[in-house]
Amino acid sequence: MTHSIAILGASGYTGAELIRIIATHPQLRIAALSADRKAGQEMSDVYPHLRHLDLPRLCTIDEIDFDKIELCFVALPHGLSQALVRDLPRHVKVVDLGADFRLRDPAAYEKWYGAPHAAPELQKEAVYGLTEFYRDQIRTARLVAGTGCNAATVQYALRPLIERRLIDLDDIICDLKNGISGAGRAAKEAMLFTERASDVLGYSQGGKHRHLGEFDQEFSAIAGRKVEIIFTPHLVPMSRGILASCYVKGDAHAIHSALAERYADEPFIRVLPFGKAPGTGGVLGSNFCDIGVVGDRKPGRAMVVAALDNLNKGSSGQAVQNANLMLGLPETSGLMLSPVFP
Amino acid sequence: MTHSIAILGASGYTGAELIRIIATHPQLRIAALSADRKAGQEMSDVYPHLRHLDLPRLCTIDEIDFDKIELCFVALPHGLSQALVRDLPRHVKVVDLGADFRLRDPAAYEKWYGAPHAAPELQKEAVYGLTEFYRDQIRTARLVAGTGCNAATVQYALRPLIERRLIDLDDIICDLKNGISGAGRAAKEAMLFTERASDVLGYSQGGKHRHLGEFDQEFSAIAGRKVEIIFTPHLVPMSRGILASCYVKGDAHAIHSALAERYADEPFIRVLPFGKAPGTGGVLGSNFCDIGVVGDRKPGRAMVVAALDNLNKGSSGQAVQNANLMLGLPETSGLMLSPVFP
Amino acid sequence: MTHSIAILGASGYTGAELIRIIATHPQLRIAALSADRKAGQEMSDVYPHLRHLDLPRLCTIDEIDFDKIELCFVALPHGLSQALVRDLPRHVKVVDLGADFRLRDPAAYEKWYGAPHAAPELQKEAVYGLTEFYRDQIRTARLVAGTGCNAATVQYALRPLIERRLIDLDDIICDLKNGISGAGRAAKEAMLFTERASDVLGYSQGGKHRHLGEFDQEFSAIAGRKVEIIFTPHLVPMSRGILASCYVKGDAHAIHSALAERYADEPFIRVLPFGKAPGTGGVLGSNFCDIGVVGDRKPGRAMVVAALDNLNKGSSGQAVQNANLMLGLPETSGLMLSPVFP
Amino acid sequence: MTHSIAILGASGYTGAELIRIIATHPQLRIAALSADRKAGQEMSDVYPHLRHLDLPRLCTIDEIDFDKIELCFVALPHGLSQALVRDLPRHVKVVDLGADFRLRDPAAYEKWYGAPHAAPELQKEAVYGLTEFYRDQIRTARLVAGTGCNAATVQYALRPLIERRLIDLDDIICDLKNGISGAGRAAKEAMLFTERASDVLGYSQGGKHRHLGEFDQEFSAIAGRKVEIIFTPHLVPMSRGILASCYVKGDAHAIHSALAERYADEPFIRVLPFGKAPGTGGVLGSNFCDIGVVGDRKPGRAMVVAALDNLNKGSSGQAVQNANLMLGLPETSGLMLSPVFP
Repeated sequence: MTHSIAILGASGYTGAELIRIIATHPQLRIAALSADRKAGQEMSDVYPHLRHLDLPRLCTIDEIDFDKIELCFVALPHGLSQALVRDLPRHVKVVDLGADFRLRDPAAYEKWYGAPHAAPELQKEAVYGLTEFYRDQIRTARLVAGTGCNAATVQYALRPLIERRLIDLDDIICDLKNGISGAGRAAKEAMLFTERASDVLGYSQGGKHRHLGEFDQEFSAIAGRKVEIIFTPHLVPMSRGILASCYVKGDAHAIHSALAERYADEPFIRVLPFGKAPGTGGVLGSNFCDIGVVGDRKPGRAMVVAALDNLNKGSSGQAVQNANLMLGLPETSGLMLSPVFP
Repeated sequence: MTHSIAILGASGYTGAELIRIIATHPQLRIAALSADRKAGQEMSDVYPHLRHLDLPRLCTIDEIDFDKIELCFVALPHGLSQALVRDLPRHVKVVDLGADFRLRDPAAYEKWYGAPHAAPELQKEAVYGLTEFYRDQIRTARLVAGTGCNAATVQYALRPLIERRLIDLDDIICDLKNGISGAGRAAKEAMLFTERASDVLGYSQGGKHRHLGEFDQEFSAIAGRKVEIIFTPHLVPMSRGILASCYVKGDAHAIHSALAERYADEPFIRVLPFGKAPGTGGVLGSNFCDIGVVGDRKPGRAMVVAALDNLNKGSSGQAVQNANLMLGLPETSGLMLSPVFP
Repeated sequence: MTHSIAILGASGYTGAELIRIIATHPQLRIAALSADRKAGQEMSDVYPHLRHLDLPRLCTIDEIDFDKIELCFVALPHGLSQALVRDLPRHVKVVDLGADFRLRDPAAYEKWYGAPHAAPELQKEAVYGLTEFYRDQIRTARLVAGTGCNAATVQYALRPLIERRLIDLDDIICDLKNGISGAGRAAKEAMLFTERASDVLGYSQGGKHRHLGEFDQEFSAIAGRKVEIIFTPHLVPMSRGILASCYVKGDAHAIHSALAERYADEPFIRVLPFGKAPGTGGVLGSNFCDIGVVGDRKPGRAMVVAALDNLNKGSSGQAVQNANLMLGLPETSGLMLSPVFP
Repeated sequence: MTHSIAILGASGYTGAELIRIIATHPQLRIAALSADRKAGQEMSDVYPHLRHLDLPRLCTIDEIDFDKIELCFVALPHGLSQALVRDLPRHVKVVDLGADFRLRDPAAYEKWYGAPHAAPELQKEAVYGLTEFYRDQIRTARLVAGTGCNAATVQYALRPLIERRLIDLDDIICDLKNGISGAGRAAKEAMLFTERASDVLGYSQGGKHRHLGEFDQEFSAIAGRKVEIIFTPHLVPMSRGILASCYVKGDAHAIHSALAERYADEPFIRVLPFGKAPGTGGVLGSNFCDIGVVGDRKPGRAMVVAALDNLNKGSSGQAVQNANLMLGLPETSGLMLSPVFP
C-alpha cells in the first residue's frame, strides 16, 4: 500500500533531495509539489537531474487538494511554516524540515529568530525530529520538527555522552566544517563558486548561530541542568557534508564504548573503531552518520568526530526516516542507499 | 531468486561503484570480492563509505570457489583479463569492464594496446557491451566487453546519426570534458588534487587515445565504410562525469528527431528538447545518459552533446545493465537510482 | 614619474584584479576608485584580500576630480560605458574593459547587443585592445577597447593562421572551457558554488555568444573576406582560466612554425614545443598566454590550444599592458608576475 | 647588487614557490637548482607555469659550485638536510624549509622524528625562522630553520597571548583546516583529486602531529613552563591555505588589543577589526597572515583565527623574508605581492 505525500517548497535543495529519495521509496507516492514562485513549471526545468521522473507540475499551495494527502513535507524558509502548518487540515501529518518548530519554548524561539511565534500551541505539540532519540514520540506524532543539520551532527556525537555524564558539560567545543549546500539555492554573492572555491571561512561565530537554540534546549534537557556549548561552523569548498570535530574532556575509551553501545543497533549510525575518525567523503548522498573517537596525548581529553550529509541525514533523509515511523512503515524504507564515492 | 556474483578487481573505483549499485539490487548477491594486492583486507578499510554493508573479505582470485558463482564482473587493468577470463570455468558468465575484449580484430587490438592478444578466440566470442545497441546479443552472451567510458558517451550521441547517414562522416569532431575518476585510483603525480584542482588539460591528443580503436570499429561497421572521428578528451576539476561536445555537419532538427525517436523507449537515455544541451551535473551517480542537440548560426552545422557518469553508465552501471540481460532479469533492475545533485 | 589612474567600476572581479596588478606597478598610482552602489565603503570591506593596501575609499564617478587623472580604467557592465566615456574630459585616456567599444560597426553592435550605440563616433575612434596585434595604434590611442576574454584566447591561437591563410577559413571549430569568474561577481543562482562544483555545461551555444561579433569583425578584416567560426564556451569548475581547443584544417607543422615565429619576440605569449598542449593551470594569476599545436592521425587536421587567465591576460592584465603603451611606459611594466601554481 | 642563491630540492611545491617569488625579487638571482631524481631536466618541464623564466637546468647537488653561492634554500624532505647542511662550505648561508633544524633539543627531535639527529651541533646553531619573533637572531644567523606551516599559523595567533599570559595555558584547542599542497607533490593515493575533492578529514589526530614538537618548544619557552596545546589539522578540498581556529579562555577584547598592538608595525600580519575572522581566500599566493578575534556568548571565551598560505607565508615566503634579513636586504623585498582572488 502506498501513501500519498506532498512536498511544500519543493524547489529548494532539500525538496530535490526528498524527491530523489522518495523516487525509489517503495511505499511513498508524490501527489503534489508546491513552489509558489515557480508554480506552473515542470520539476525537470528546475532540477534537470530529475527529468526521468514522472512528477506532478509545481503548483501553489492553494492548488493542492489535501483530502488526498496523508503526509506533508514542508521545506520552506523559517517563518513561513508556522501559519501554514497551523491551517492545514488535521488529518494531514507534517514533517517540517525548517526551523519553525524545533524550539519548544516560545521565548527561546523569539530570542533566536527575532520574532514571536505565530503558532505557539503547535510548538508544544511538535516532536523534535532526531529520530534515534525521539523514535517513540515520532511514531505517534502529527507534527515532527526536523532538526538543524548542524544540530543533528553534533547531537549524534554528544547526546549519549551528556546523558551519561561522561564529559565535562562546561567545556564542550564543536568546530564544524560545512558544505555549501547548507546555504540553500538562493542567489547570494557570498555563495558564488568564485567566492567559495578556495576559501575556508567561519560564520555566525561567537555564539550567534541559531542552531545553538536547539543545542541549549536538548542538551540542557538531558543533562538536567543548563548546558551551553561553544559551536562554530565553517564553510569549506564542497557541496555537501558536515564534519563536526568535538573537543571534550573525558575518558576517550569510555566515550567510545558509550557511543558504540548506544548505536549498536541503529541502522544509520556507523561507529568506527577506536582511534579512527571519519571524513565527510564516506557519507555523501546517504542517510548514514559516521562517528569516531580519538584520544589525545593529554590525558582526559578526547575528540569525537561525526560526519553526515547535511541534505540527507541532516535534513531530507531524516525527514523520510521520520515519515516512515509516522506512517507505520519500516524505518529504513527507501533509505538504504549507499554513499556515493568518489 | 538471487544470483551469486563475484567482482574481480574490487578495489578500484569501478569495483566500489559496482558494490554500491549491487547493494540495493534485488536479485544480485555478492559472493566474492578479489583484489590481489589487498587480499585479506576488509572492504570497509579500502572504501569506508561502504562500511555499512556485510561484504566478503577481499581475497585472491585463486581463493574463489567459482562453482558457486554465476557471473563475474572483471574490473582489472587491461592486459590482465585475457588469460584470466580464458581460464574461468565455462559456466561462469563474464562482464569485463576493462579494454581487453572491446576490439574484435586481433590486429586492431595489437595496434592500440601494443601487444598481441592472449585469447583471440574470446575476442571473437565477446559481445560489445553498449547495451542499447547490442541488447539481443548480450542476452545470450557468455562474455560481454564493457565499452570505454568515452566510447559510450560519444556513441550514444552519434550512432543513430551515422547509421542513418544524417551527418558528414568525414568531419566529426568530439571534444570531451572528463572527470578525474576516469584515471582510476592509482597514485600518480598528475592526478593529485593539487595538480588537477585549477587545471583543464587535454590528454592523448592527436588521435592517440585507445578509445579510438572502439570508435573506428563501431562507426565503420555501422556505416559500412571507414569512419575516423577526431576525438580529444580533457581533464576538468571534478570527480565524475563526461561531457561530449560533438561538432557535426548535418541538419540540426533532423538530428534531434532521429535521436529522440531512437531513444524514445530507452529507460536510461534522456533526450532533451531541441536547442537544450545537458551538463554533467544532471547525471552523477546514475545510469542515465543525457543528450541534447543545438543548431548553429551556420546552416548545416550542429552540436550533439552527451553527458553521463563515467563510473556508472560509462562503466559499472552499464555492466549491471548487461548482467541483468545475461541473467534474464529486468534490464533496469537495481539501476533506477536518481542522479545526486548538488 | 608616476601616472595617476582611476578605476571606474572597481568592485567587480576585473576591478580587483586591476588593483592587484597596479599595487606592484612601479609607475602607476591609484588616485580614485568608483563603485556607485558601494560608494563610501572601504575596498578592504569589499575585497578583504586587498586590505594591506592604502587605497582611496570607493566613491561615485561624480566625486572624481578628473583633472588629476591621466588614465581611466573603465570596468563597467556593457551599455554603461558609452555615454560615460563620451562625457569624460578629453585629456583623460581610457582603457575600457567592457564590450562597448569592441565593435567598430554600429550595426554590428546593435545586432549583438540589442540596442543602438550611444556614442557611435567613439566606436570609430576606439582601438581594439589586442595588444600584440594593435600595438602601434594603441600607443597613440585615447580610447582602447579591451577585448572579450574568449575573443582574446581564440585570436591568439588563430590570427596568425588566418592572416597567412594556413587554415581552411570555413571550418574552424573552437571549443572553450571557462572558469566561473568570467560571469562576474553578480549573485546568480546558476553561478552558486553548489550549481557549478560538479558540472560542465555549455552556454550561449549555437552561434549566440556576443564574442562572435568580435571574431567576425577581426577575422573577416584580416582575411579580407567573411569568416565565421563555430565557437562554444563551457563552464567548468574552476575560478579562473580559459582553455580554447581550436580544431582546424591545415598542416600542423606549418601552423606551429607560424605561431612560433609570430610570437618569438612577444613577452607574454609562450608557444610550446610542437605536439604539446597547455593547460589553464600554468597561466593563472599572470598575463601569459600559452599556445600549443598538436597534429592528428587524420592528415591535414590540427588542434591549436590556447590558455590564459580570463581576469588577467583576458582582461585586467591586457588593460594594464595597453595602458603602459598609451602612457609611454615599458610594455611589460608591472606585468611580469609569474603564474601561481598549484 | 644581487645575491646568488641556490635552491636544493627545487622540484617540490615549495621549490616552485621560491622560484616564483624570487623571479621578481630585485636583489636575488637563482644560480643553481638541484633535484636529484630530476637532474638534467628543464624546470619548464617540471613546472610549465615557470616556462617564461630563464632558469638553470636542474642538477644534482654535487654539480653545484658553492663558491659562487651566497645562500642556499634547502627544500628537502626531513632527514636529508642534516648531513647535507653540515657538509656545506661555511661561507654559505642556509635557509632550511624542512623540519631538520626546527627543534633545538636532540631528544625532542628523536622523539618526534623517530631517529637521532645527524648534526646535533647544528641543531643548536640554527635559529628558528618565525621572522616576526626571531628577527634579530635571524639577521646574524648562518642557518635558519623554517617553521612548520601549521606551526607558523598557530604561533601568529597565540604567541603574544602566551607571552603576556592573556589566556589559560592549559586549555588551548587549535582546529586547523589545511589545503592539500601541504602534503607535497609525491604521488599518494590519499592525495588524489578524487579522494580529496569532496572530503574533509582530520589527520595526525590525538596529539601525534610532528608540529607539536615545535609548539611545545616555543610555547613552553616563552611561558617559562610546560605548555601543551591540543592541535588537529584537517584536509579540506583546496590547494593552498591554512585556517587555524584557536579556542582559548581569556578576555576577547584584551586578546584583540594585544594582537593588534603586537603586530601594528609588522608588514605581513594583518589584524582585522574586533569581531571579524579571516578566511583563507584572502591570503592565497601572498606572504600575508590575517588574524581575527571573536568573542563568545560564554564569557571568558574567545576564538583567535589565523589564515595564511602554507606554501608562501607558511614556507617559501617566510624563507625569502628570512633570507632578506640574513643578506642585509629590506625585509619586504620581493614579498609585497598581493593575494590572488578569486
